[in-house]
Order: sequence, then C-alpha cells, then structure tokens
Amino acid sequence: MTAPIPTAIVGVTGYEGAVLAQLLASHPRFRLVEATSRSEAGKPLSDALPNLTATSIATLPLTESVREAELVFVAVPHGAAAAIVAQCRRDGRRVVDLSADFRLGTAQRYADWYHHEHAAPELLDEAVYGLCEWRRDALGQASLVANPGCYPTTAVLSLGPAFAADLITPDIIIDAKSGISGAGRSPSRRVHFVEIYDSITAYNITSKHRHVAEMEQELVAVSPDDTFPEITFIPHLVSMNRGILATCYATLRPGVTAAQVQAAYRERYAGEPFVHVIERPPETSWVLGSNSCLIYLFADEARGRLIVIGAIDNLMKGGAGQAIQNANIMYGLHENAGLARAGVWP
Amino acid sequence: MTAPIPTAIVGVTGYEGAVLAQLLASHPRFRLVEATSRSEAGKPLSDALPNLTATSIATLPLTESVREAELVFVAVPHGAAAAIVAQCRRDGRRVVDLSADFRLGTAQRYADWYHHEHAAPELLDEAVYGLCEWRRDALGQASLVANPGCYPTTAVLSLGPAFAADLITPDIIIDAKSGISGAGRSPSRRVHFVEIYDSITAYNITSKHRHVAEMEQELVAVSPDDTFPEITFIPHLVSMNRGILATCYATLRPGVTAAQVQAAYRERYAGEPFVHVIERPPETSWVLGSNSCLIYLFADEARGRLIVIGAIDNLMKGGAGQAIQNANIMYGLHENAGLARAGVWP
Amino acid sequence: MTAPIPTAIVGVTGYEGAVLAQLLASHPRFRLVEATSRSEAGKPLSDALPNLTATSIATLPLTESVREAELVFVAVPHGAAAAIVAQCRRDGRRVVDLSADFRLGTAQRYADWYHHEHAAPELLDEAVYGLCEWRRDALGQASLVANPGCYPTTAVLSLGPAFAADLITPDIIIDAKSGISGAGRSPSRRVHFVEIYDSITAYNITSKHRHVAEMEQELVAVSPDDTFPEITFIPHLVSMNRGILATCYATLRPGVTAAQVQAAYRERYAGEPFVHVIERPPETSWVLGSNSCLIYLFADEARGRLIVIGAIDNLMKGGAGQAIQNANIMYGLHENAGLARAGVWP
Amino acid sequence: MTAPIPTAIVGVTGYEGAVLAQLLASHPRFRLVEATSRSEAGKPLSDALPNLTATSIATLPLTESVREAELVFVAVPHGAAAAIVAQCRRDGRRVVDLSADFRLGTAQRYADWYHHEHAAPELLDEAVYGLCEWRRDALGQASLVANPGCYPTTAVLSLGPAFAADLITPDIIIDAKSGISGAGRSPSRRVHFVEIYDSITAYNITSKHRHVAEMEQELVAVSPDDTFPEITFIPHLVSMNRGILATCYATLRPGVTAAQVQAAYRERYAGEPFVHVIERPPETSWVLGSNSCLIYLFADEARGRLIVIGAIDNLMKGGAGQAIQNANIMYGLHENAGLARAGVWP
Repeated sequence: MTAPIPTAIVGVTGYEGAVLAQLLASHPRFRLVEATSRSEAGKPLSDALPNLTATSIATLPLTESVREAELVFVAVPHGAAAAIVAQCRRDGRRVVDLSADFRLGTAQRYADWYHHEHAAPELLDEAVYGLCEWRRDALGQASLVANPGCYPTTAVLSLGPAFAADLITPDIIIDAKSGISGAGRSPSRRVHFVEIYDSITAYNITSKHRHVAEMEQELVAVSPDDTFPEITFIPHLVSMNRGILATCYATLRPGVTAAQVQAAYRERYAGEPFVHVIERPPETSWVLGSNSCLIYLFADEARGRLIVIGAIDNLMKGGAGQAIQNANIMYGLHENAGLARAGVWP
Repeated sequence: MTAPIPTAIVGVTGYEGAVLAQLLASHPRFRLVEATSRSEAGKPLSDALPNLTATSIATLPLTESVREAELVFVAVPHGAAAAIVAQCRRDGRRVVDLSADFRLGTAQRYADWYHHEHAAPELLDEAVYGLCEWRRDALGQASLVANPGCYPTTAVLSLGPAFAADLITPDIIIDAKSGISGAGRSPSRRVHFVEIYDSITAYNITSKHRHVAEMEQELVAVSPDDTFPEITFIPHLVSMNRGILATCYATLRPGVTAAQVQAAYRERYAGEPFVHVIERPPETSWVLGSNSCLIYLFADEARGRLIVIGAIDNLMKGGAGQAIQNANIMYGLHENAGLARAGVWP
Repeated sequence: MTAPIPTAIVGVTGYEGAVLAQLLASHPRFRLVEATSRSEAGKPLSDALPNLTATSIATLPLTESVREAELVFVAVPHGAAAAIVAQCRRDGRRVVDLSADFRLGTAQRYADWYHHEHAAPELLDEAVYGLCEWRRDALGQASLVANPGCYPTTAVLSLGPAFAADLITPDIIIDAKSGISGAGRSPSRRVHFVEIYDSITAYNITSKHRHVAEMEQELVAVSPDDTFPEITFIPHLVSMNRGILATCYATLRPGVTAAQVQAAYRERYAGEPFVHVIERPPETSWVLGSNSCLIYLFADEARGRLIVIGAIDNLMKGGAGQAIQNANIMYGLHENAGLARAGVWP
Repeated sequence: MTAPIPTAIVGVTGYEGAVLAQLLASHPRFRLVEATSRSEAGKPLSDALPNLTATSIATLPLTESVREAELVFVAVPHGAAAAIVAQCRRDGRRVVDLSADFRLGTAQRYADWYHHEHAAPELLDEAVYGLCEWRRDALGQASLVANPGCYPTTAVLSLGPAFAADLITPDIIIDAKSGISGAGRSPSRRVHFVEIYDSITAYNITSKHRHVAEMEQELVAVSPDDTFPEITFIPHLVSMNRGILATCYATLRPGVTAAQVQAAYRERYAGEPFVHVIERPPETSWVLGSNSCLIYLFADEARGRLIVIGAIDNLMKGGAGQAIQNANIMYGLHENAGLARAGVWP
C-alpha cells in the first residue's frame, strides 16, 4: 500500500478543471487536497460542480492558492498560467500545465504566436510536451509537463505514423470539427446556446489557429528527415458538447501501398492503451468520457490519397484525461490509473 | 392598391427583433424603413442578421433612433422600453411594445412585480393587452399594444376557455417547458451552450415568475364571476432553441363532462386563424416558425382532472408573430397578413 | 483478495445492456464473462459497442446464451425476459432482471397492465423489487431482483419520504421529462432523430403508463396507513439522450411546515450514497453517467403546496446503475462498488 | 390576374415532400390540388404533417395517385421515381423529379452508379439537370427537370466559378457536413436519435458517394476545356436537423490572385437571387428555411490554396426549395415566387 500523492487543481471551475476533479475523485493514487477558484473560493466543491455531489471530494472547500499539494494541475487560460506554474516550481511542486504557455519550445515562438512576452521563459527548457504516445521517455523524468492542445493531440496522433514513416508528402489538410466545450466556459455570443445550436460553421480561417504551431513542431520532430509539414487547418464548431473529429487529407508518396500504411499505424500504436486503429469511421460519441483516440485509415492507392480520421474527447485525451495520463507517467504509475473507465455511451 | 405603412423595429438585433425583421421582409403592407441597434448602428441589416442576406431589406442601414415610421415595434428589455414607447407616442406613432412595460394594468402592480417605478404610467390606460383572441375588439382601436409574454400567451390560450366557461376550479398547475431563446440574447453562463445542452432543469421556483402576474390578470378577466386563479407555475429550460410546451393541470367542477370541455374549446376557437384544438398531443416542432397555437385536451371524468397541453413558438405566437398579428388588427388588415406561412418542419 | 464473480449480460446491445457492460468493465468483483446478443453473436463486444474498444472486455465474443455466469443481468424487453430469468434460476444463477416482468407483485396485476399472461408466475414471490433505498433489507437475501422502471425510481425516491411521513394528501401530479434513450434502441419514426430533435412533446396521456402501476405499488407500501396514491402521470420526451427530470406536485396536509418536510427527507436519505437532497433545482446533466438521484424540495406553506423535483440518469439510477447497486447488495459488497465514479460533466 | 396552376406532390410525407407542401401552401401561382402517400391515403394532409394545421391546404385528402395536376413534384426514392415520372409525362404533365433518377445524362452512367437498369431511359434526353444558376436557359423550355442532389448543389455552386474560370487545378477535396434530414425519413439505427445526437461521424469513405457522379458531370460541363475534376468527397453526419456545410479545398493555378477569385465569383453570381458571396464563414443556421446558398472565399496566395465554404439548407436549395425555383423558371414566373421568405433564425 503506497501513500496518496497530495494533488491540487488550479482553476477547477473551468471545463478542464471540472473534468480533472471528476477523474481525481476516483484516482487510486492522486488525492485531491486543494482546488482553487478565484470566483468561488470558500464554497464547497460540489456547489461549483454539482455533478460531484455524491463523491468523496464533494465538500472540499475551494481555495485561492495552492499550499500543500505535491502535484499541481494548472487549468487556467494561457498567459495567466505561466506565473502560477513558475511559483509552483519555485515551491518544488511538480506541474502539469493544461494551458498553451509551455507548449512551444522557445520564447520567440511563443511571442510570435501569442503576441506577448513569455512570463517564465526560464522554464521552457524544463517543460516536456506531453503527447504521451510520442514523448513517453522524456515524460518519465519531467517535473513540468505542457499538456497538448486538443486539436494538436488529434492531428499528431492521426498523422504522426504516416509522417514518421515518410509515407506522405508534407502538404496536409486537416478539417477538424469540435464540440463547443473546446471554446471554454466564459460566456459570449459565440457560445450562446441559441447561436450555435442546430448549426455548424468554420472559424479562424484567415488567421492561423495557434494550435497549428504545435502541430508543426511535433510533426517535424517525428519526421525522419526534419520535413516541415505544410498544414492547412480549418476548425469547425459543431452543435455538440464534447468531441473532436479530425478528417485529415494527405498525399501518399509514390508507390506507398495501403498495406504499408496500415502496418505503419498498427505497429506504431501496438500496445498503446489509449490509441486504437479501428475498421470503421469513428463517431465522437464513442469516446465520450474516455481517454481513447480512435483512428480510421483509408489509403486510396489508385488516387494516391491518404485519409485519416481521428476522434477524441477534447476534455479527456484532448485535455484533462491526457493530463492525468501524463502525471501517471511522471510518477511511474500504470498509465491508465484513474483512466480505465469505458467511455460513456449512449 | 394601398400604400405601404412605414414601419420601424427598435432593437432589431435581439431575438424578437430579428424575427420581426424576418416577418416584415415579406409583409404585404408594413414596410420596414428603420431598424435600430445601439451596438451596430451604421451597419447594413444583413451584417447583424445574416439570414436576411437574400431579402429586400438586407441593405437597410441600422440606425440609433426612429424618425420616419408610422408604426413602431419596440423590442428592447422591460424598463428600457417605456421611455422609448413614450417618445414614439409623443411623436404620434402607433406602437406594439414587446416588453413587459405595459402589460400590467396599473403602475402599482408594475412596481410590485418589477421592483421599480413605471417610467410612463400615464400611458397605461391607453395600452391594450395584445392577446389577440381574447382582446380583439379593443385592439382595433389601439394606438399602443402591450404584446403578451410567451408563457402567459400559452397559459391563457390553454386555460381561458375552461376558465371562461367555469368548467374548472381556480387551483391550476402549469408545468411549462421553454426553448432557450426565451432567455434572450445576452450572454451568460445560464445560456452557455455547454451548460444547458442535453439537459433540462426547472427554474424560478421559489420566487414567482413575473409572467404569473399576466396570467392572473387575464384569467380573472375572462372569468364569468371574477374568480381569481390560484396558479402554481414552474418553468423549465429545455435543450432546444424555440418553442413552449405548457402542460396544464386543473380540476373539473363536479359534473363537468369531457364533451362539455371539448365543446367549450372548439366553440371558443372556431374560426380563429391561429389557435387550433387538435386530436394528438402537440410537439413544439410542429409550430416552429408559425404563429399557431396547438391545443390538446384530456378531460378525465372519472378522476375529475382536466389536462390541457398548449404549444407555441415563443418567438412567433409568443412574441414577434403575435406582435404582427396585433398590428394587423390595429390597421384593419387580414389578421394573417405576413403570417400565412406554414411552420417550418422538419 | 477475493475471487471474481463470473457475470453475464443477456441483451448487451440494448442501451441498458451497453451501460451494464461499461460499468462491469471496471467493477472490482463482478467479472463479465458472457454477453449475449441474438443479432450479433460471434462478434467481439467492441464491434457492437465501440466505446468499449479500450477496455479489458473489448474482445469478449458475443454469445447466444448464458453458460458459466453465477450472476446474470437480464436486459431484454418485458415479455421476453421472464422465460430467460426462469431458465437462469433453474440453472441456479442469481438474477437482476431489468425488464418489467417481475416488478408487479402478482400475476393478475401483471396481466392487467401488460395484457398477457405472465410466463413464470411461480417466481413472483421470490422476486424483490429493487428500489435499493426502500428495500435494502430484502435485497440482501435475494436471488432474483426486479430492477425498477426509470420513472418509478424517480417518482418514488422523490415522493416516498413525504408519503411515508404522511405529509401530503394522496392526490399527486408527476410531470416527467425523459431523454430519448428511455424509448429503447429499436428504430421507429418516434425515435428518428429528425422527428424529435429540437422539440418536446407529452405522450401516453389517455392510457395510463405501465410505470404508474409500480409507483402505486411502492408508494402504498411505504404509507403508514396503506393510503393509495392518486397519481396523475404525464411523461414527456425531450430532445436529449439521457436523464429524467420529474416535477412532482402534491398538497401538504394541514399544518405541515417546510421545516418538517426538509427534515423528513434529510433524515430519510441521510447516509444514502446515491440520493441527495440539494439546495438548487437539479439539472439532468448533473447526474449524467452517475448513479445519483438529486432531489430539490419547495414546500410553499402559504399555499399548502409541495413541489419535489427529482433528477436521475435513466440508464444509471433508472436502469443499469441501480442494477449494479442491487447486485452489490445481493453479494454484500460495498454498495457503490463500480459506481463510485463522478457524473460526467459537461 | 392569372389562373392558378394545379399542382401535385407525389410522396408528400417524406421530408422533401413535406417542405414542398409548406412552400406550396403560400405560393402565388402553384396551387396544391393533390398530394399522394401510399401509407396515409385518405387522411387529411394535416394529419400527416401537423405543421400545416393552420394552412389553407390542411384538409386536402391524401390520395394514391395523381389525376388532375398539370405540374407534378415527384419526391419518392430513386428507383421508384422513374416509373411515376414516365406515367406523368405520358399523361402530359410537367414534372420536377427530386430523386436521382434523371440526374445522370445516360442510362449507362445511371446503371454504373446505381447498380440497376434505368426504368425510363427514353426520358433522359428530355430531362434537364435543374441547378438553376448554371442551367437556367435550358430550364425555361423543360417539361422534365431532374432536381439536383443536396451535396452536388452545394459543391457545384461553391466550386463552379473557380472551375469555369480555370482558376484551380482539377484536384479537389470536399469535406461536407450534413444534418440528419438528408438521410431521409425511414427509421433505422443510423438515424435513431440516441445514436447520432451529440456526435459527428464521417461515412461512405471507401465507396464513392453517388452524388460525386453529379459533381463530376456538372463541373466538367462548366470547364472551359472539359477538364475532368478529381474529387475527394467525404460526407459527415452532424447532430442537427437541416443544413449542409461544404468546406472545399483546391489548388490555385500559378499566378492566380485572391482578387481574381473574388471577382470571378462576384461576377458569376451578380444578380442571382439565391446565391450570395459573403464576407464571413457562413453558419448553416443562417440559411435554415431559406433557398439561399451563402459562399465564403479564402484564397491564400502565399500557399496557392483556395478554400471555399458553401452553406445551404439541404431541404430548401438542396431539395424542395430548388424544385420550386425550377418550376418557377419552367413557367416563366418570378424566380423567387413562393421563395421570398427570409430564413428562419434563430
């Protein structure tokens, strides 16, 4: 019997924070001892998150800052996260940061994409990009993990094996569809129920989505010859709560067969607990509440086209679930500790 | 061939205003010449309301105030409406006010329910409560119409005939379900897509909903002996855009038969263009985009219970549609001018 | 360390069966060893239920009948269940039956409500009605449990304490709203996406819903003086997948205070792991994927009215979740074994 | 004052038939005199389509065949339509066929794509493909119009101008998202509410969707040098009722500028009543209930990429609306007769 690891969530009332709390409520080792919320400090946790009413953490009082935890999940917006992470590190806590603040490798790239100076550039070298299936070795030693964005998680899991095995040319189109929770919990006309219900739209077309920076960084990293991908990325908002479906279009290198593609993916993800190559196009409902990524491949040899469709729950494998997975790796636990539950369906 | 009537909408970018504009885009007599929006003045109408792109009013520039119209629809929140209505009346314009400001008969009742002084009490006597099927005569002469609330429209249309014919006791339960557009267009956590999608909840349980004041006022008005109804009203928010379904529970007076009830309703609404007693429980989707109210009756003689289910589109018969119907009556037009369209289904 | 209990699901591809499989995938003692499906026998489980792809039971082959299990969950429609249950009992297996076949106490009542003879009346005496919070003692000894219907679960949990403490008169109105999964997985026009999406309707108004028989049976059972409830029950179909919200209207007995009501409920459910009296009207999304029932009370002393609002997930506390809870009690396990997870939100 | 044109709908209870009836209920010249339904013959129309309760055609009795109409809209599935169309033509009626039976130019192509012989090949020469904006001249003389599929309508309107002006290479990717009504009204597990709600999935990936045949046929027809397009078409089912959003990816020919692209589209669609090039990515809700197609262009000169996003209501411009538009052209009426209404929003 091993001792519980005292754990905190900074920003528990956002959607990522809320899902972290749900997962920690039944995690075998990480024990939630602190949860912060600027707006609702003092209240019990189940006041802010009524779905936790029946759990052991229901009465945990919300606080303003972290004091005891050894492991901290930071789930506040980019920009705000860096300073909190830096303080936690100074206090000797290990951190999984769900914001974008430590995802890009250099302060310059951060400034280029986020248009302000990085608040803790000295920590960038320490931070490990937490796409577990591609960075597992580095994660084992990490004290600071930058949890990937939801779109990059889907895109890199979907295209990584083809890119790593040099099966496709660099020109890639990613047509991604996301549920509304990806837009965060702050009210706005954009996320007003009536404005988006029973509808679909594309967004962020002319200005590159910041998540593209992550996709580029991670795909070039897996390329055998440092090929830089040329990504066209069009995200869409869909009338549903959770889930990302990425339909990826690439061009097969001459002579590449469908069998080669299947083999590359199946070999790459053999033994992975959360990434599965399946025989049918996935539906986002199949991964709701689970940490799985389901991938479907169609290599059209005649036309030299590869289509890869990846599906995740943006708040699980695309957020809080992957954050727990990262922490499990950091602590040498079973990778699916606290994540073994099946997806909720229907 | 008769001349068009120059018409304005004050507050065209709210949901009621938007539907008014849609209806006026093909109204045979009311011609939209002005539409105001504080936040988007100067822009063409179809910038604010892209669904109007293909209509004749697409390029109408949004303004800050009314200058030319003879008929004005005021579609701003209660409190803000009264002063605008007063100015319009001073300028000699006829007004249909979609807010609550002129619905209650006296300044005292207004202050009791809305907790502030009425800004134009001198107009209360002039205002006619615009529930067309019950106030038609007075509306023909009106220069100021108070368009009813969406819940009172459903409730009074559903229970009015039984109350008027003294078929039920005063104790009434109204369990109402509303789409989210009834909560207005202002962003808040309450109407955030993710918070309410795939869910249902009751609200406003301990404090009486202001719409109850209208229901009481109108039901006592139709009672043959001024019986005051005892209304228990529980509204619910449903994960859909438009529509109200009111399930009303009442107690039959001793000896009242199902046949009597059917006769009372069918007689009362015979010839009405928009209120229909039907043989099956209505679905709110059946009235989407139409000005209809569909009513279903079940009089359980054995148990002395009357159940009435009424369905409307809250933005049509419960708002903009009824406002047009009121204006049609005010101008002696065919009551369904501009409202003849079938509901949009599916 | 105790041995796993070999467990089967009969009818795993229906919605109740699917949720049972999800829950058993991480249950500490019940090990799913068999799952039957007439239509998909031979396939691996994750072919039929892709959300189970990443679980330990993904490759379990679907079978046509039960051969090994000690504990069997029967999740097929009423009428079909009785014979299967009888065979399981002859084979010495313990059974939780999720159909209606063993819920009513006598063969006569079954025939009255379901309009055909009961196929295994000899088992009715053995069957225990599995509303855990009200039948816990009997369940501990049970070899056959009749898992309650989703509506009766909500209604009896919501009204039981008031009825048991004789705080209300027998005349009760239950206005219930259900997600579409309650209608089962068989395709029909009624459950066609387009027919019910973005809409709400009442159904089963003139003929009494069979679930009323259960409500009557269980409420009279808790009444101190065998008062028979007079239930008016109107169910509604709401455009959402899961969840039941029951808005219950009752009349307080003279002199009963709000404090008495609160005390009766809080005392009755003190210590219950899954039933919680809360301070705000519950939203069905708060219980999605959890076995909780959230109850809100409003006792309006002035008007002598009691309003109780109960919310459950119809496939959890209203179905598969309660079935697991029943089995936990049957086997003397912790009542929340396999059910400790927080609800999935958002 | 001109005489009404007696009009029939064959298959009025499908979704296309239902929308045709809604539109004809207020069409200035086409008078619905007959509506057929095999399953519900004898009933009044509003029994089958309750949203028509308040219209002038509510009591029209459903029939089994057409006897009087001069103009017939055929809205039954492909395969079944051809024989009905042939009989109507023999009887001298003009026909708009909403099925796929007369969309492809030759019996051979039909057999290739639909895998059975064409039932009335002698009519193929007579049939005009009814994409109004590209075939207007031929439509004026037509006695038989093949109404286009919903996906081809969106795709050809979105890509036609670029293809016609030779601005892009033939290699085209169309990532299309459709509401569920596109799958028709027949019940199946695929369209069961619970299976598709709150989810998104791709379908028909390995076998080419039959609509691709139409896209190829129409794009090659507009190409100045008969360039055959190489179309990759991936359709998706989205959790909404109506609407298609097509995100189209093409490669600009060298040297083509964004200004050229804008000019080509604006010139091509100048004066069109229903096709509009707009400045923002369209949302499908903006065209709900209207016959409009909204198109957004992003020509990325630096990367040589053209992205075109088109949005329609699949039951309007993608079905019944375009069918009315076609009939208007056939009869020399104003093209927007009966179609002038603004889209329903919100």
